[in-house]
Amino acid sequence: AWLVGASQVLGLTSVVLTGVWMGHYRGGFAWDGSAQEFNLHPLCMVLGLVFLHGDAILVYRVFRNEAKRNVKMLHGIIHLLALIISIIGFVAVFDFHRQSKIPDMYSLHSWCGMATLVLFCIQWVMGLLFFLFPVASSWLRASYLPIHVFCGVALLVMAIGTSLLGITEKLLFSIMSTYSLFTPEGVLANILGILLMCFGVLLGYLI
Amino acid sequence: AWLVGASQVLGLTSVVLTGVWMGHYRGGFAWDGSAQEFNLHPLCMVLGLVFLHGDAILVYRVFRNEAKRNVKMLHGIIHLLALIISIIGFVAVFDFHRQSKIPDMYSLHSWCGMATLVLFCIQWVMGLLFFLFPVASSWLRASYLPIHVFCGVALLVMAIGTSLLGITEKLLFSIMSTYSLFTPEGVLANILGILLMCFGVLLGYLI
Ligand code: HEM
Ligand code: HEM
Ligand code: HEM
Ligand code: HEM
Ligand SMILES: O=C1O[C@H]([C@@H](O)CO)C(O)=C1O
Repeated sequence: AWLVGASQVLGLTSVVLTGVWMGHYRGGFAWDGSAQEFNLHPLCMVLGLVFLHGDAILVYRVFRNEAKRNVKMLHGIIHLLALIISIIGFVAVFDFHRQSKIPDMYSLHSWCGMATLVLFCIQWVMGLLFFLFPVASSWLRASYLPIHVFCGVALLVMAIGTSLLGITEKLLFSIMSTYSLFTPEGVLANILGILLMCFGVLLGYLI
Repeated sequence: AWLVGASQVLGLTSVVLTGVWMGHYRGGFAWDGSAQEFNLHPLCMVLGLVFLHGDAILVYRVFRNEAKRNVKMLHGIIHLLALIISIIGFVAVFDFHRQSKIPDMYSLHSWCGMATLVLFCIQWVMGLLFFLFPVASSWLRASYLPIHVFCGVALLVMAIGTSLLGITEKLLFSIMSTYSLFTPEGVLANILGILLMCFGVLLGYLI
């Protein structure tokens, strides 16, 4: 149980650190096609596709003794929230690229990120169809469950990996020449990366 | 069983692509403190800490019907090989940094990489102590086994994540200005990253 608490501390600290990095070092947030609009991208992705995604999975572990129906609703709702926030983060970076005439989808980060979000949407729709609406027979549900669980965990790992790639890209775009001098911004972003990794390992252990 | 075959194709292709990237686009290999010495680093890491690491884990799935003792030996030997090759890759990059006066351990990639290698060494020693030498009671062995398996899989995921970070760094150091124009080198390296990710997902599924 205290491990669940630790995961919440790690997750929340990650979200806050992302906010501090973008808010303090990278000039804050806006929705005007500028680099400040880009800044919403990391924040939304870490909040939606890492923290909320992780917590949506954890509810089954935390609320073991609640009525299954309620926990299922909660799981679905948190995932819906995660989906909405990640889509805002997606729109933010694509809109920034369009207005700044930067090409789309060239980087390893963007390929991994797109794969993660598309599969996340599919997982979401499948989860809804199989578990919330009574279209699938109970046999079909039972055989889909392990697939659902494996894909859910794999997607969390992919989201975390993608985030670390994004952190590395953002650092090399912004502070390439001073990164190797252990500037505070670089160290802060490295720590963010390590915390995200620890969040992933801990959730993998808890599930 | 054909999934095991697919994993071998993915793993081998990744090693070959890394060799082509470093050998053809980045000027080949050497051991003289130059950027060509650096080039050994990606190759050794992908070969040792990803491909061999993965295959050492797979032997338990592939040789289910062999004598346990032999499979254990094989598992240990492949892991020893993985360890030696990764240490060569480590020495290559540190030696290159020393001779080129580039600071050490400043990047998120290097932090993740160091964590992975240190934990890998610990896992290796623990595996040896618990399973190969008869120091641990069978009760102790049985309770360590799930930890050994979880840490082994987590380390494979960390090695793959670290590799993707290294790929992104190397691309931005070398071809930052043309990466967004879909140059062949960038696309090749992105594909390498995606193949490594697929290798990881497939192994996670097979174990
Ligand atoms: C799961 C989390 C994430 C996903 C799914 C994701 C997805 C994406 C996608 C699809 C793009 C391409 C946009 C385009 O081509 O117009 C992109 C761009 C970018 N992202 Fe992320 N991202 C994530 C997290 C992060 C984080 C945490 C950071 C930084 C701290 C970041 C930094 C960047 C940067 C610098 C770009 C622009 C360069 C490029 O196209 O690669 N991302 N992201
Ligand atoms: C992208 C969205 C989703 C992801 C990533 C995801 C992920 C997961 C994961 C990892 C688990 C295993 C939790 C555990 O065993 O501790 C799980 C369980 C489950 N999920 Fe989802 N899920 C998603 C959407 C949904 C939706 C929309 C529903 C429908 C309401 C749903 C219904 C369930 C059910 C019924 C379980 C089984 C719990 C059990 O019986 O042990 N999931 N999900
Ligand atoms: C599991 C695999 C890997 C591990 C454990 C690892 C580990 C490390 C470590 C510890 C350093 C720091 C060296 C120093 O500070 O002197 C480093 C540097 C570096 N590695 Fe890797 N590496 C891995 C894979 C890769 C791959 C596949 C690539 C590229 C394709 C790569 C590219 C780089 C680059 C460009 C540097 C120099 C910049 C820096 O210090 O971050 N690495 N690696
Ligand atoms: C860094 C090195 C190592 C890693 C990453 C690692 C990883 C793993 C993994 C992931 C498994 C689960 C395989 C499966 O269930 O399919 C496993 C099983 C096992 N490993 Fe290791 N291992 C390492 C070193 C060792 C060493 C040195 C030994 C001693 C010879 C050893 C002995 C075993 C044994 C006995 C099993 C149990 C197989 C079973 O009963 O199912 N491991 N290892
Ligand atoms: O900081 C670095 O820059 C280089 C690269 O430009 C040399 O090929 C590299 O590998 C580093 O460690």
